[in-house]
Amino acid sequence: MYSETALEPVRLIPKHLEEFDLVIVGAGPAGSSAAICAARAKLKILILERAVIGGQAGMSYHVENLLGYQEGVLGENLARTIEKQVMTHECYVSFETVEQIVADNTMAPKAVHTNTGNIYYAKAVILANGLEPQKLDKPFENSFFGRGISYYAQGDAAFYANKAVAVIGGGNCACYAADYLSGFVDHLYLIHHSNTVKAVKTLKEKILNNPKIQCIWDSRLEDVFGIDKVEKIKVMNSMTGQHTWLDVKGVFLYVGRIPPKDFAVEGLRTDEKGFVITDECMRSNIKGVYAVGDIRSKQIRQIATAVSDGMIAAVNVERDLARKGNELWA
Amino acid sequence: MYSETALEPVRLIPKHLEEFDLVIVGAGPAGSSAAICAARAKLKILILERAVIGGQAGMSYHVENLLGYQEGVLGENLARTIEKQVMTHECYVSFETVEQIVADNTMAPKAVHTNTGNIYYAKAVILANGLEPQKLDKPFENSFFGRGISYYAQGDAAFYANKAVAVIGGGNCACYAADYLSGFVDHLYLIHHSNTVKAVKTLKEKILNNPKIQCIWDSRLEDVFGIDKVEKIKVMNSMTGQHTWLDVKGVFLYVGRIPPKDFAVEGLRTDEKGFVITDECMRSNIKGVYAVGDIRSKQIRQIATAVSDGMIAAVNVERDLARKGNELWA
Repeated sequence: MYSETALEPVRLIPKHLEEFDLVIVGAGPAGSSAAICAARAKLKILILERAVIGGQAGMSYHVENLLGYQEGVLGENLARTIEKQVMTHECYVSFETVEQIVADNTMAPKAVHTNTGNIYYAKAVILANGLEPQKLDKPFENSFFGRGISYYAQGDAAFYANKAVAVIGGGNCACYAADYLSGFVDHLYLIHHSNTVKAVKTLKEKILNNPKIQCIWDSRLEDVFGIDKVEKIKVMNSMTGQHTWLDVKGVFLYVGRIPPKDFAVEGLRTDEKGFVITDECMRSNIKGVYAVGDIRSKQIRQIATAVSDGMIAAVNVERDLARKGNELWA
Repeated sequence: MYSETALEPVRLIPKHLEEFDLVIVGAGPAGSSAAICAARAKLKILILERAVIGGQAGMSYHVENLLGYQEGVLGENLARTIEKQVMTHECYVSFETVEQIVADNTMAPKAVHTNTGNIYYAKAVILANGLEPQKLDKPFENSFFGRGISYYAQGDAAFYANKAVAVIGGGNCACYAADYLSGFVDHLYLIHHSNTVKAVKTLKEKILNNPKIQCIWDSRLEDVFGIDKVEKIKVMNSMTGQHTWLDVKGVFLYVGRIPPKDFAVEGLRTDEKGFVITDECMRSNIKGVYAVGDIRSKQIRQIATAVSDGMIAAVNVERDLARKGNELWA
């Protein structure tokens, strides 16, 4: 019935130094939403994504609070739908990591530099990079990464079937991870520096009532030991100063998410934590540079708010480009 | 696999004078999104809806710009999904029209009065009423309503198969209506006071290239004639002052949408057009009263932004109620 919208997927490949109306950095829910809206406005769009289209959505186990999915949706499936939806629109897509954007505060083209040495020019750039896991910055973290330390429960859970693991953290993400992992593992320690979890009520109750999950409050991960892989962790209770040794095969770090550090836009205004400050039209302090989704300084970081951000940015890019040269943009 | 979320639908019926944590006025995408998030926070929720759950979403023919729907979604189907999704959560639902909300600027319960004479009390109220069609306020409008004059192309298109109709307006909604109607009617006049349509580019091109659609620019609907039903309309060109008579059987009025007029919240701050002013947490100027979706003063009125608004409001209601009595709310 809607054959006019069911176009064959077109993936256009950009050329080094090619110029676009709009470069979108990141193709999670925010960037993808922006891409779809901008494509409908017939802008020439390049999406630069470091991993896969769908982004962080695909990292979620089961998304339950998104309107339009009656019984929720597996993150993986949502990401795949997003990918297909993006690909039915006419846009250039390349899998590269953006490292630097050179943009003076004018409507002149911005230069987008990637890790492959490519430079692309854009009249407008939407930053939709999303966040990356906060690291503990302890020596054991790098040495055991991939050998028992993980930042991604959904990807690595199967390795820990019937074993004991620890989740470090107590926010929504940590709780989702613990809930998910508890379906695989034998025993799970949830180690949190506070004395309660900070998650939506239904999830909180699930965690506290799960017989496989043992919460260890007021505590921090001090050290990790093992010959080749993680075997033991040392946990300190910050109220008593007491140390505990726990036998675990896996440690999942969910202590927060932060803006990517290997990425620079000179002169871009951020808040003290590195999130990009925008107005309600998603405009940053640099003309022609917009920010959407989790990387933006805002209150609620959810798929629904990311999708909304992306749409708002795309509409404003279109309007701002149409006005270019107008005194409003002088 | 997710039997824990696939609860049987529960529709709880509220009692006159019953008290709730949260009353949500309107169950379109914004109100429904708020309801789902608030239900996950285990608030006691009452949804008051004047027509059907899903709201304005169901009035759209085909929603094409919403992330997560690979080939778009019929508005009707989206509305039905929203309804089912809401009903899988524990909340009270009643089909009544809210006429007045009495709220002093404290956290004391607000009194929500409906057209059936019921009063409900709420610690917090989210206004998600949406908008209603702007009227031309001309005498012919009421006399021909339902006899050739319509505000709802999707509902009434079938009556005009192989006939000539007029659409009054030139915004996105008017263009969607014209596009939809052109699949039924023989000829369509798009009558707009400006000399171009103001719609997303892909839609604009579709309208301008549709051989069934004849745009009549710089023109206004002056009068409507007919014995029993609409037979002729009189259109004036505002540049030349010239009048034209057109034979049409239907007139679809799409001249804008405005906040409902039969609805009062004393002391609520709105902009000059009647849209509710909120902060980015969706709080109005009255403590405990929030506004989301199309009724809110904001830039982009779309399903995606409504869903985001609803989620943000629900989170803040939960937080604000938890803080009640705290000095922050003194």
